Amino acid sequence: MTQNQFDKKSEAWSALFSEPMSELVQRYTSSVFFDKRLAQADIEGSLAHAEMLAAQGIIGSQDLADIQRGMAQIRSEIEAGSFEWKLALEDVHLNIEARLTQLVGDAGKRLHTGRSRNDQVATDVRLWLRGEIDLIDGLLTDLQKALVKIAGENVDAILPGFTHLQVAQPVSFGHHMLAYVEMFARDAERLADLRRRVNRLPLGAAALAGTSYPLDRERVARTLGMEGVCQNSLDAVSDRDFAIEFTAFASLAMVHVSRFSEELILWMSQNFGFIQIADRFTTGSSIMPQKKNPDVPELARGKTGRVVGHLMGLITLMKGQPLAYNKDNQEDKEPLFDTVDTLKDTLRIFAEMVGGITVRREAMEAAALRGYATATDLADYLVKKGLPFRDAHETVAHAVKTAIAEGVDLSQLPLATLQQFNPEIGDDVFGVLSLRGSLEARSTLGGTAPVQVTAQIARHRARLGD
Amino acid sequence: MTQNQFDKKSEAWSALFSEPMSELVQRYTSSVFFDKRLAQADIEGSLAHAEMLAAQGIIGSQDLADIQRGMAQIRSEIEAGSFEWKLALEDVHLNIEARLTQLVGDAGKRLHTGRSRNDQVATDVRLWLRGEIDLIDGLLTDLQKALVKIAGENVDAILPGFTHLQVAQPVSFGHHMLAYVEMFARDAERLADLRRRVNRLPLGAAALAGTSYPLDRERVARTLGMEGVCQNSLDAVSDRDFAIEFTAFASLAMVHVSRFSEELILWMSQNFGFIQIADRFTTGSSIMPQKKNPDVPELARGKTGRVVGHLMGLITLMKGQPLAYNKDNQEDKEPLFDTVDTLKDTLRIFAEMVGGITVRREAMEAAALRGYATATDLADYLVKKGLPFRDAHETVAHAVKTAIAEGVDLSQLPLATLQQFNPEIGDDVFGVLSLRGSLEARSTLGGTAPVQVTAQIARHRARLGD
Amino acid sequence: MTQNQFDKKSEAWSALFSEPMSELVQRYTSSVFFDKRLAQADIEGSLAHAEMLAAQGIIGSQDLADIQRGMAQIRSEIEAGSFEWKLALEDVHLNIEARLTQLVGDAGKRLHTGRSRNDQVATDVRLWLRGEIDLIDGLLTDLQKALVKIAGENVDAILPGFTHLQVAQPVSFGHHMLAYVEMFARDAERLADLRRRVNRLPLGAAALAGTSYPLDRERVARTLGMEGVCQNSLDAVSDRDFAIEFTAFASLAMVHVSRFSEELILWMSQNFGFIQIADRFTTGSSIMPQKKNPDVPELARGKTGRVVGHLMGLITLMKGQPLAYNKDNQEDKEPLFDTVDTLKDTLRIFAEMVGGITVRREAMEAAALRGYATATDLADYLVKKGLPFRDAHETVAHAVKTAIAEGVDLSQLPLATLQQFNPEIGDDVFGVLSLRGSLEARSTLGGTAPVQVTAQIARHRARLGD
Amino acid sequence: MTQNQFDKKSEAWSALFSEPMSELVQRYTSSVFFDKRLAQADIEGSLAHAEMLAAQGIIGSQDLADIQRGMAQIRSEIEAGSFEWKLALEDVHLNIEARLTQLVGDAGKRLHTGRSRNDQVATDVRLWLRGEIDLIDGLLTDLQKALVKIAGENVDAILPGFTHLQVAQPVSFGHHMLAYVEMFARDAERLADLRRRVNRLPLGAAALAGTSYPLDRERVARTLGMEGVCQNSLDAVSDRDFAIEFTAFASLAMVHVSRFSEELILWMSQNFGFIQIADRFTTGSSIMPQKKNPDVPELARGKTGRVVGHLMGLITLMKGQPLAYNKDNQEDKEPLFDTVDTLKDTLRIFAEMVGGITVRREAMEAAALRGYATATDLADYLVKKGLPFRDAHETVAHAVKTAIAEGVDLSQLPLATLQQFNPEIGDDVFGVLSLRGSLEARSTLGGTAPVQVTAQIARHRARLGD
Repeated sequence: MTQNQFDKKSEAWSALFSEPMSELVQRYTSSVFFDKRLAQADIEGSLAHAEMLAAQGIIGSQDLADIQRGMAQIRSEIEAGSFEWKLALEDVHLNIEARLTQLVGDAGKRLHTGRSRNDQVATDVRLWLRGEIDLIDGLLTDLQKALVKIAGENVDAILPGFTHLQVAQPVSFGHHMLAYVEMFARDAERLADLRRRVNRLPLGAAALAGTSYPLDRERVARTLGMEGVCQNSLDAVSDRDFAIEFTAFASLAMVHVSRFSEELILWMSQNFGFIQIADRFTTGSSIMPQKKNPDVPELARGKTGRVVGHLMGLITLMKGQPLAYNKDNQEDKEPLFDTVDTLKDTLRIFAEMVGGITVRREAMEAAALRGYATATDLADYLVKKGLPFRDAHETVAHAVKTAIAEGVDLSQLPLATLQQFNPEIGDDVFGVLSLRGSLEARSTLGGTAPVQVTAQIARHRARLGD
Repeated sequence: MTQNQFDKKSEAWSALFSEPMSELVQRYTSSVFFDKRLAQADIEGSLAHAEMLAAQGIIGSQDLADIQRGMAQIRSEIEAGSFEWKLALEDVHLNIEARLTQLVGDAGKRLHTGRSRNDQVATDVRLWLRGEIDLIDGLLTDLQKALVKIAGENVDAILPGFTHLQVAQPVSFGHHMLAYVEMFARDAERLADLRRRVNRLPLGAAALAGTSYPLDRERVARTLGMEGVCQNSLDAVSDRDFAIEFTAFASLAMVHVSRFSEELILWMSQNFGFIQIADRFTTGSSIMPQKKNPDVPELARGKTGRVVGHLMGLITLMKGQPLAYNKDNQEDKEPLFDTVDTLKDTLRIFAEMVGGITVRREAMEAAALRGYATATDLADYLVKKGLPFRDAHETVAHAVKTAIAEGVDLSQLPLATLQQFNPEIGDDVFGVLSLRGSLEARSTLGGTAPVQVTAQIARHRARLGD
Repeated sequence: MTQNQFDKKSEAWSALFSEPMSELVQRYTSSVFFDKRLAQADIEGSLAHAEMLAAQGIIGSQDLADIQRGMAQIRSEIEAGSFEWKLALEDVHLNIEARLTQLVGDAGKRLHTGRSRNDQVATDVRLWLRGEIDLIDGLLTDLQKALVKIAGENVDAILPGFTHLQVAQPVSFGHHMLAYVEMFARDAERLADLRRRVNRLPLGAAALAGTSYPLDRERVARTLGMEGVCQNSLDAVSDRDFAIEFTAFASLAMVHVSRFSEELILWMSQNFGFIQIADRFTTGSSIMPQKKNPDVPELARGKTGRVVGHLMGLITLMKGQPLAYNKDNQEDKEPLFDTVDTLKDTLRIFAEMVGGITVRREAMEAAALRGYATATDLADYLVKKGLPFRDAHETVAHAVKTAIAEGVDLSQLPLATLQQFNPEIGDDVFGVLSLRGSLEARSTLGGTAPVQVTAQIARHRARLGD
Repeated sequence: MTQNQFDKKSEAWSALFSEPMSELVQRYTSSVFFDKRLAQADIEGSLAHAEMLAAQGIIGSQDLADIQRGMAQIRSEIEAGSFEWKLALEDVHLNIEARLTQLVGDAGKRLHTGRSRNDQVATDVRLWLRGEIDLIDGLLTDLQKALVKIAGENVDAILPGFTHLQVAQPVSFGHHMLAYVEMFARDAERLADLRRRVNRLPLGAAALAGTSYPLDRERVARTLGMEGVCQNSLDAVSDRDFAIEFTAFASLAMVHVSRFSEELILWMSQNFGFIQIADRFTTGSSIMPQKKNPDVPELARGKTGRVVGHLMGLITLMKGQPLAYNKDNQEDKEPLFDTVDTLKDTLRIFAEMVGGITVRREAMEAAALRGYATATDLADYLVKKGLPFRDAHETVAHAVKTAIAEGVDLSQLPLATLQQFNPEIGDDVFGVLSLRGSLEARSTLGGTAPVQVTAQIARHRARLGD
């Protein structure tokens, strides 16, 4: 066995270099302390590459066996925590390759035949992200199931539906929860769409131009379960679209989380008092002994900024980069890793927390009685009596003005008073003016009527395999 | 016919209001001067709604006929530029509805039955955006065709492929152009994916809770060519995901434009001199008479910031909003409109400009001869002689060092000198060290070898219907 | 008089160009339809330049007189709206210069001596922005005065202070308003700081390298009221820091507006009912006759996204640009203009709206009685009796638990019950447990005690010249 | 000594809570593993607080002595790495306070008198950031000095000045370096401005409303070297402006770094070849043996995205937050910490790297001879002969066209040919058309003439104390 090139890396990159990297430069440019997270993907990719090299006769079968043996040992060293990561070896790829060569000699030096770190790292990140996407997809399903469950328990709980945070119309709490199911379902759709673009193989692009070895790229893609092969080598090594698209997806999911959080925080506030969250999701104050703070939704709302920041960072990173690979791209990893971690933690904790929500129906219903939530129902009642909608709208505005002046709800105005606004109003109006009457009336597809909400819950359960 | 509620809008919103909006507030809150762009979509949506109302027996057939007649006249007034847009009527919806009522009386007042501006505006924006998406899809195809065309004309033109902007390996100019075809093809994929999420119907969600009229929402969706109906009324009126997803798509497309622009600017710079752009895409200087500046790619690179800014603006807009509709959402339109305009203009001008590129092959080839672009080929040559890749890499580093010291290319070193680095090197090495030899050797799928590039061009032509 | 070069611009940029710009390219690259807003600054800068050229003997005094006469006419044409802006002349600078040459012949052609559009546009934008900064400074003062006024009227109005949107401790409404005064005062500080960096003169940098004419740049700076001269010509023409710094300032100001808006919206919601906003700042609903929506604060909260988007757009624009001037920079204007417009409108409307707030003291006070707002006061009471703070905190947590179980406030627990938690508690505890007692107790500098709030109001009045 | 409240934290927050936090929630909400970086600032702030409490008679002198003794031990435990950080204690503050109480008993429990974690953390972050600001200020000075030094060595080295990346006019390499000195000097100005706003004391605001203890806040401010006291308690605990302003400053500084990096990368590219960077700042390729890649500037350019992302994240975080403290704010720390780290590392490595630049004067000068860099000089020459500038500009455009057609520089056209464009051209024109003549001519203040550059260098040296 010949000497190992990497043994001299602390002295100089290669024979071409007259001095080693400075300590500061090593620390600045090395990625090993964050990209070692890619180790399993790196090994998986290397094994698929080696297996193909052997099948194509580019390396011998003994080389392949050596590589497989060496990688098995490296895998267990990493799992056991005994693998020694070296800053001087820059990144996860060189660390693993150097160790492999230490373990199996020349076979290790043959592994890099026909590839470059440029296509290797692109492959590793995609393999790793594909796995995370599948975990996130599961977490999105869990969260949707938790929301559907609480919706099912609260189909006929009434809270004031707000627009402009003003009481608008009564809605079912279950219906409100299903709005978030729609959002997270769309996130899952987007995730499935982008997974297809992640799950393509850059390996074989080599540094930027392809390689002169007779590689079988489609075989490697099949081995790794990928749906296709990147069709242009320059694009393959420089494309980080998939990372940007993923962080854009994650930003939208976090925007949904932030909206839900905002509502949970409002609903827990004493002025609403619509819900309680189980103590284990709250914290106290170091100074105010009475406090129970909704820390989890607040933090989640805050973490939206973090994920959005990563999206912005990645776009800024790629803007204006000439082809093909530039070192700038090393900066794609930490934002992507942190986005994945933040999103997974947040989805997991929200799925749990939704199960810990206690709904206070009386408080919600009492709030719905403030704010003339059934005024639209009165207008619709008048339309059914023959008034054009716009005239009915104006008539009801007068009625509300009177009710406000008298400090009562519309349903508390005497029939005689109501008839002053329109003589067609009859005794049946009071059914229309009740919260429950209003709720049940909104029975169009997607409306808040309990019968519609129940139908939606059934649809979601079937869809989610619940 | 009863009085028109909107005639009094300059006095007060409705009977409930004790004073009119201040002038300043009107200007601040009105959207009509930018949302009138939605007029055709608004009318199309209203006609579908009215047709369904009549089919369901909610309005009479005479009402429908009146509405259709009125809308036809409004449409021609708008096309003729004679429609009078009024600030006091806030937005495109009230302007059109008020005019309709002026023209056809009570039928006009019945149009708004069972809907709200909340679901109406969400429908309008989606209808309008769907149309723009289809235009943009066509422009993406045009740009790809232009790139495939110039690629086809330059399969065997050689330029230095760069990594880190250092000469790496020779690549085909056609191959380089195809890298951008891949990017814009991915953009088109993303656009098709998001179109499905745009093309769903919010109408029928009314203000936020559905409505008490027996609407047939699926009929309206069919009339409007939409693929489905938003299944939750609260979500339907508050969802702006589609706008964010569209601007994220547009940001990625502009990032691709910015990368291409960066390269065009570099290539036009005297130190590269790889291409010329037709004069009609350049401008001069007010002070330096010799200048021809690549204004179009520079501006396009700059406009990336604009589109990315809109994405960030929209995310910031939606972050933390409670359900359902809030006035904040009115701010979704201008960024979306400007994103669409910027992207369309940019794609159109780039498709034209690509056709105006003159490739200077000698300059590109001369540049490829600087920088030891075939060093990897020498390493691969040694591997085929039996050296492990890592040892071959180190050997070539020594050879390059010698060539640099002597100020010559690797191919200019005498065989004897080369043999000092490895005695296995034979006369056949010089074929390997030529640019063309190197190019042709990289014949893996997606590689830069002319045979591969030609195959890719055929694939793209078939795909693009060219 | 010789021929006017610009008469032929529709044919070709200069003799060097073989074809004119395409229509599409003209529209894409022209800026005149937005940068004509710089016209007055452009004329002011040109006059200062011409006056210096004459003083230095570079042009004759007749030339100067001609230029001044021509510019006076152009100024009145622009004010009268009769100036004809031409797309083919690209921008405000060439439009004005071409018209000047039409009016005064060769003197007009001499104006551009020793300058370039690169330093000219940088000068124009700075002059214009300086004027806007001074207007914004005035608007920030107006808004602070309005806030100080409503604070003065509500020093002893008590609302619940929230942390985590949970009732924390009683605070003065006046004190709460002063928190926003602090924020806008910091914004004004930042504005003053950045004004110094805006108010420096790029003119004289010419295209990028300075000029061979004996300019007196410091004279021009004095004429234009600028504090200094940009000291490096390359930097002078490429620097857009001032635009980024301004949009960062504006983003922070809008973040403050968004926080205030969020609170106004909450406070107007029926579940709070703390305030009313005058009808002229609200709008109704097209479907719900009872609605009065806080459109102005909602829109302002939404417009935060717009301004933040512009900041991000400008940063993306400048990232990675090589020196010196690149056409990308033309994209600095629209975001800057829109940021200025948005901020000015928002500040103006908020200063007015604050004057239209009606405070509902009873509702606020009632809310402060929910949530055990004086629990900290009980802890502090115990500390004064000798308990370490941490033990007092724990003791009060027990008391609150009991009060919650009994559904009463701490002040409603009998003394005997309180003494079970700590025997030191005496009759004087009930003064401590009242809202007013709690408020008055917090009398450290910057605290909510009325005496402190009054002192702060006096400080602000003096500072704001009120 | 009574029992320590914190010993039970793993069971429940306080007596009010019926269950402990879940493991997942603890991990999600705890900050101790990143905010322990604030430990020294936390201790410094606590000591100043305790010293004031004693001076005001709120705690006894023995308590103060105990606290000082305990803190001294904690400090050394932290420095020695033996301090045990506990996740269950949430953050740096509770960890230190719990340990203090363990060490010194009741005195430890008295430390938190009159403060809250809300004002405590705000104080800690400001103290810590102030220290980092001073370090960054020093690094900005170092970088400027390094740039001034290389400028001084290259006053008369000529490179082509570019606009639009097209050769524009010859400039001095020293002059070019000084453009960056201007940028980093502006960054230092901004840093000094924002330091004043960081260096204000929130402590004493307590949870949000001030406190009932007779604190002397100004004494604490003096002890900590702060310039003032936050004047409103609500604002004091909720204000994160300083963090946003700092990241905006850092984003601008990184934009400057990215521009410089872009140029270094261009200049190192073989097509420019203007400079070399010492080997210790470059790396090689795993596949291409000839490569020396400018990793440091590439990474720095990439890291711009990271810092800009943090700015965007923090703005998103604060947008729309109601007063006063919300848990969202905990998310301010990691972006701020990473911004500081990234900026410090980058400035330090750039100051070193500038010293490792080798300037290749011949290559730069050769490039300046391509592209008709002295065309403006010919126009100015004609103006001095009496032509209006615009006519001179047009005349030179013709001359350049001829020179391009003949493939020569303007200075290589025979006098007779030049005279065809204007008969006034004399023999003296060739001095004007030389690079050095052009350079020396641009001698306005801030221009590229060596005499001006030398003057600027002297000014910077005086300013930087060099």
